[in-house]
Formats: sequence, C-alpha cells, structure tokens
Amino acid sequence: MPADPLIVPVSLGERSYEIVIGTGILAAAAELIEPRLSRRLSGRPTRTAAIVTDANVSQHAEAVALSLQSAGWNVESIAIPPGEKSKSQEVVASIYDRLVAMHADRRTAIIAVGGGVVGDSAGFVAATYNRGLPFVQVPTTLLSDVDSSVGGKVGINHPQAKNLIGAFHQPATVLIDTAALTTLTDRDYRSGLAEVVKYGVILDAAFFEFLEQSVAALNRRDPAVLQQVIATSCRLKAYVVERDEFELTGLRAVLNYGHTFGHAFEALANYGELLHGEAVAIGMVYASRLAERLGKIDASITARQVRLLDALHLPTKLPAGMAFATEEVISRMRLDKKAVAGRMRFILPTRLGHVELFDDVPESDVLAVLSI
Amino acid sequence: MPADPLIVPVSLGERSYEIVIGTGILAAAAELIEPRLSRRLSGRPTRTAAIVTDANVSQHAEAVALSLQSAGWNVESIAIPPGEKSKSQEVVASIYDRLVAMHADRRTAIIAVGGGVVGDSAGFVAATYNRGLPFVQVPTTLLSDVDSSVGGKVGINHPQAKNLIGAFHQPATVLIDTAALTTLTDRDYRSGLAEVVKYGVILDAAFFEFLEQSVAALNRRDPAVLQQVIATSCRLKAYVVERDEFELTGLRAVLNYGHTFGHAFEALANYGELLHGEAVAIGMVYASRLAERLGKIDASITARQVRLLDALHLPTKLPAGMAFATEEVISRMRLDKKAVAGRMRFILPTRLGHVELFDDVPESDVLAVLSI
Repeated sequence: MPADPLIVPVSLGERSYEIVIGTGILAAAAELIEPRLSRRLSGRPTRTAAIVTDANVSQHAEAVALSLQSAGWNVESIAIPPGEKSKSQEVVASIYDRLVAMHADRRTAIIAVGGGVVGDSAGFVAATYNRGLPFVQVPTTLLSDVDSSVGGKVGINHPQAKNLIGAFHQPATVLIDTAALTTLTDRDYRSGLAEVVKYGVILDAAFFEFLEQSVAALNRRDPAVLQQVIATSCRLKAYVVERDEFELTGLRAVLNYGHTFGHAFEALANYGELLHGEAVAIGMVYASRLAERLGKIDASITARQVRLLDALHLPTKLPAGMAFATEEVISRMRLDKKAVAGRMRFILPTRLGHVELFDDVPESDVLAVLSI
Repeated sequence: MPADPLIVPVSLGERSYEIVIGTGILAAAAELIEPRLSRRLSGRPTRTAAIVTDANVSQHAEAVALSLQSAGWNVESIAIPPGEKSKSQEVVASIYDRLVAMHADRRTAIIAVGGGVVGDSAGFVAATYNRGLPFVQVPTTLLSDVDSSVGGKVGINHPQAKNLIGAFHQPATVLIDTAALTTLTDRDYRSGLAEVVKYGVILDAAFFEFLEQSVAALNRRDPAVLQQVIATSCRLKAYVVERDEFELTGLRAVLNYGHTFGHAFEALANYGELLHGEAVAIGMVYASRLAERLGKIDASITARQVRLLDALHLPTKLPAGMAFATEEVISRMRLDKKAVAGRMRFILPTRLGHVELFDDVPESDVLAVLSI
C-alpha cells in the first residue's frame, strides 16, 4: 500500500465502525475488510460476499473481488444498471433473486462498489434480506465518499418521492480509495466538492478556511489534500451521526443545509440536468441569502461561500435558461421528506461554521429570496 | 372497560414498549395508544394514522378507527387482501402508494389490525417508509397475540422463501383484545395454542403444568384464563427478545422449537393444508423424539407434550394421506433461513422448561426420527 491510510472511527455502540481512507487500497481489500467484518459478526467468520456494482466502475469492483478471491473468499458479482433508475423496487427485487440463487445466509456480506446509487440500493438489500446482512461500502465517487457512504442511510426511490423507502443500516466498514477519484468526470468530481464545502459552513470554520487555501490543490485533485479533505468531511459527518443516528433529535438535520432549496431545484430540473452537488451549491447560496434577509448573518458570509464555490467551478445560481416559477419551488419544498405538516424547514447559518434549524420562516421571505 | 387490562412491559432501551391485554379494549384504543405513541415519539404529537387491515377483521379495524376519530384523529383505512399472498412486494408497494397519497410523514402512525399477515406486511411498510414510522400492533388472532406481534420481526415473503425480506422494527405498543378471539375459527384458535404450549416446553415448566390443568377452560375459550395465558406467553417471549433483540447471540433461536420440522412440513404441504400452529405442534413432537433418541430427555417428556396437544385437539403427527419422502423433508430443512452453510440446527429440550441449540445432529438420527 503506497502510504498509510487514515482511519476515521464512527462510534455507534454495537454498530461502531471504521472508515479507511487511502490511495490504492482496494488491492488490499481483503485484509482491510476481514478483521472489521468479523468484529461486526462477533467472530462468526464469513468468506462469502456479493459485490453489487455497476458497469461504469467495474474495474474497482474487480480489484475488490480479486483481493477477496486471492484470500480464499467465495465472491459473486451483481451488476445493476448505472443511474438513478436503479434505486427502484425492481432492481432491489433482482438483487434478492441473485442472493437466493447463491444461497446467501446471514453471514454473507454485501459489498457495494460504486457511487450513491449502488450504495443506497445495495444497502437497502443488506438492511432487508434475512432482516439484515453485514454490509461494506466501497464508494467510488467524491460525493459518496463524503456523504452517502457514511451514516447508515440506505434506500430507494418511490415513483413520487426520492429516498422514500429505506432504512438505517450501518456498514461494518467503509473503504475509500482516493485513486478511484482520478477517473471521475469533472462535473461529478466538483459535485462532490459542494458537500465538502457544506461541512465547513455548517460545522467547522477552520476547515472552510483550509478549503479556501487549498483551491489550487483541489482543482488538480491532489491526492494528499484529497485524503485530508475526505477524512475531515467523514469526521464531521460522523460527529453528527453519532449524536443523532436515527434523525430523532433534529441534529442530523444540519446536514441538510442547502438541501431544501437544492432538492426542489433538482426535482424541477427532472434530476439529471443539475447534478446533486450542483443543486446543493446553488441551494447553499439561496439558504445563506435567506439567513441574511432574516438578519442571522451579514452579507460577507454569503460572499465567502460564493467565492469558494466559484473558485471550485461550482454554480452559485441556476444556469441561464433554467428558471422555475417561485410557486413551483415553494410547493416542492413543502413536499420535502423532512417537512412536517407541510411547513418548510430551513437549516440556516448564524455564523461561519454553525447552522440552526428554523421552521417558522415566513413564506414571503422565501419568495423574496427566490426572486433575487 | 370491563376489567383492568394486564400490562406486559418489553424492555429494549429506547425501543421499550408495553403490551396491553384486556377484554373489549379496542373501544378505548385512542386512550391506550396516545400516551404510548407520544412516549415513542419523544413528545412530538401525532394524530394521523393509517390502519392496515383485511376484510376478515374489518369490525375490529372499525372499532379502532372509531375510537381514534372520536378523539380527533385523522384516520385512513387501508385494506389488503386476506391471506399469506399479501406478504408480497406488490402489496407493500400498494400500501406505499396509499401513504404517499395521504401525505404521510414521519409522525404518521401505522396501525396493523389483523393476524400475522397484516402485522408482518404493515410492519415492513412501517420499518421502511421514510426510514421508519411509528407502529402499533393490534393482533386479532391467538397466534399473532402470542407470537408475531411481539418482538419486532416484520417482513414479507420472497417467491422462493418465507419471511426472507424483512426488518426488526419494534412497535410503540401492542393492544391485545381477547374479545377478538371469540370470532376465530376453531382451527385458527387451536393453531395459536400450539405456540402457547411451546413457551411452556422451552422456558417454563410451571406454565406447562398450568396449561395441563387448564385444558377445559382453554377449550371453552375462558376469557380470564386466556388473558393470563396470553400475558404469560408475551412475558416469556419478551424475556427472550430482551436478551437477543437482533438474533445475534443465538438465544432467540429457542423460540424455534418445533419450527425446523414444522416449517419443512408447512412448505411441503404448500402452506394452507397445515396451519402454522398445526405444523409446529407436529414439529415439536418430532423434535422431542429427536431429543429422546439423542439421550437428552426420557420418553415421558415427549408423552406429556403429546397428551397436552391431544387434549387441545392439536395434531401430533402428519394427517393420514399427507406423507413426505424423508429426503424431501431433510432438503427443506437445509433451506431454513436460520440454517448456516446448509447445516441443520435443532432446538431440543434437555428437560421440561429448557431447550438448547444443537447444530451437530447426525443426519442419520434425523432420518430415523422421520421414519417413525
């Protein structure tokens, strides 16, 4: 292994696990997975795994399979079609069928190698097959490295609402190989950076400053800087998840900064024209402006976010030609999964590195910000 | 309410709840459910519920709905077709659709009013919609009173294996109305008694003796005796679930006494010719004979079980005309969800009121017992 990987612990009692972050670590997948999996399984050994992946990332799935097979594992590969449509009951049913055919039992590990779609669908299967199989996340995009692969949220879409059907199912470990990021398209890479910026705004002003100083390194995908940035992002997400694993206290909602606006934009753009991270980048700017308008922060906090997102070549406003009626945006926001009784909830900064939940924002202020 | 209901607590930390057992309590459903639900929801009030039921038990569902509506609740009724076929992805998808249409949010309670099928399917929806909705069980059969409604197991069938897709999702409360048992068919009622007898054999010799002495009262469905018997059964199941909620330590497996043989018989009879409890009754006798053959118990322990099951008009051997090749039974048992790496696991008594797991039983002994 080139350099020592970084380890980020996630402390959740019996469901605790480690995130391993390094460069070129997939070739050593077996030795990284085995001890962590058998800790989760309380010593009941397993050497059978189903690797769920998609055709776009087959080289990474093959690296994991090769490492496990060399270590004597029995490995089955299950490829699902790339893209959001695979977060469906049909695809989940097809994975169940493959697991039945391979006689999977409660110690068969499900290993997701791919982006958020693969992790979410495979994770939902792991949560529900035999009432729960051990699960390993091997994210291959920056977005899933810092977001979906940490925290145990898994799920699929309902035709009428994203991520409506799901569970909390913590992985036994997460392996993040920064080498996988070199093959990402520019847009996908930058989309992940939006969530990284988010962590600075919501939880860690010093990290935000580090990002401001690291723009050049981030833009050339410097592996050492990326390893640090991913580790810090995972540490910050773990901090939140440890304190609100099941989204009960409200703390976990801070992760939704930029997402109330962002989800509405994504949905109105019919998912695809705007990548998730792009929508979140724009959403953060709107949310920050809303905080300004409500007198929570001054304009310089918004300006710094706009400047950093800009420097990372992320959008800070809806692209020319993409305009939505403000009423449509509002009505989408009311449908948000986290909305309660149709009231819009906003996570807004009160200073750099700190956000709070506001659920009494007058609609007129939201409308005003949308009309800027 | 006629008499004071009995309360059986289930202690599972944040997921603790109470089972309320009484006669005619459904008319007071609202006052029983409200405080228990708001304890689970940490005070976030809810007055919206989806009642999932089937046409066979509509009078009980209506009693619950009426009580809630009188207390100001907004109630939606979702009827699914009666019978095992409703434990399917299709039926679950149809319930998701209804929840979307009613704009269910995370505080919408799912209330299952029915037998095991309704509880298992509705519970799976409650476990997975929005990553978890509060759930209330109102079982209407003796089998679900003492078995499926306690312990948090929910799930649906895969075309190739029963209960293959599921979750652990503890209810916020369970309301057991013994008045519902008066309308049960004789076979359904007796099928539930088989699981009651099981609790005596696996955990409580004194309870077994109480059942021996209460045969006449049980056969005439005496409400006071039934209330006691249900409460003790729930207490014994709760004892096991509290010590092995997620089926990790192996303790929960004691509940499967009679089920390894029983599930194989049920499956080979194509589910329906043998009710679950009937298959378990026969399975307990086979398991007890296997324990005898292995020298764990003497013949008197089996004889007492046969005598009690007989007195309760439960079968103790496969009905005339229902014969399965021993190899078929063995191969079915190897497919059992709890089998690991194809090895058959048996829960066998070592004395009345105590069972242990044996996973090294020679196939020749199993074959010998099947050939008696």
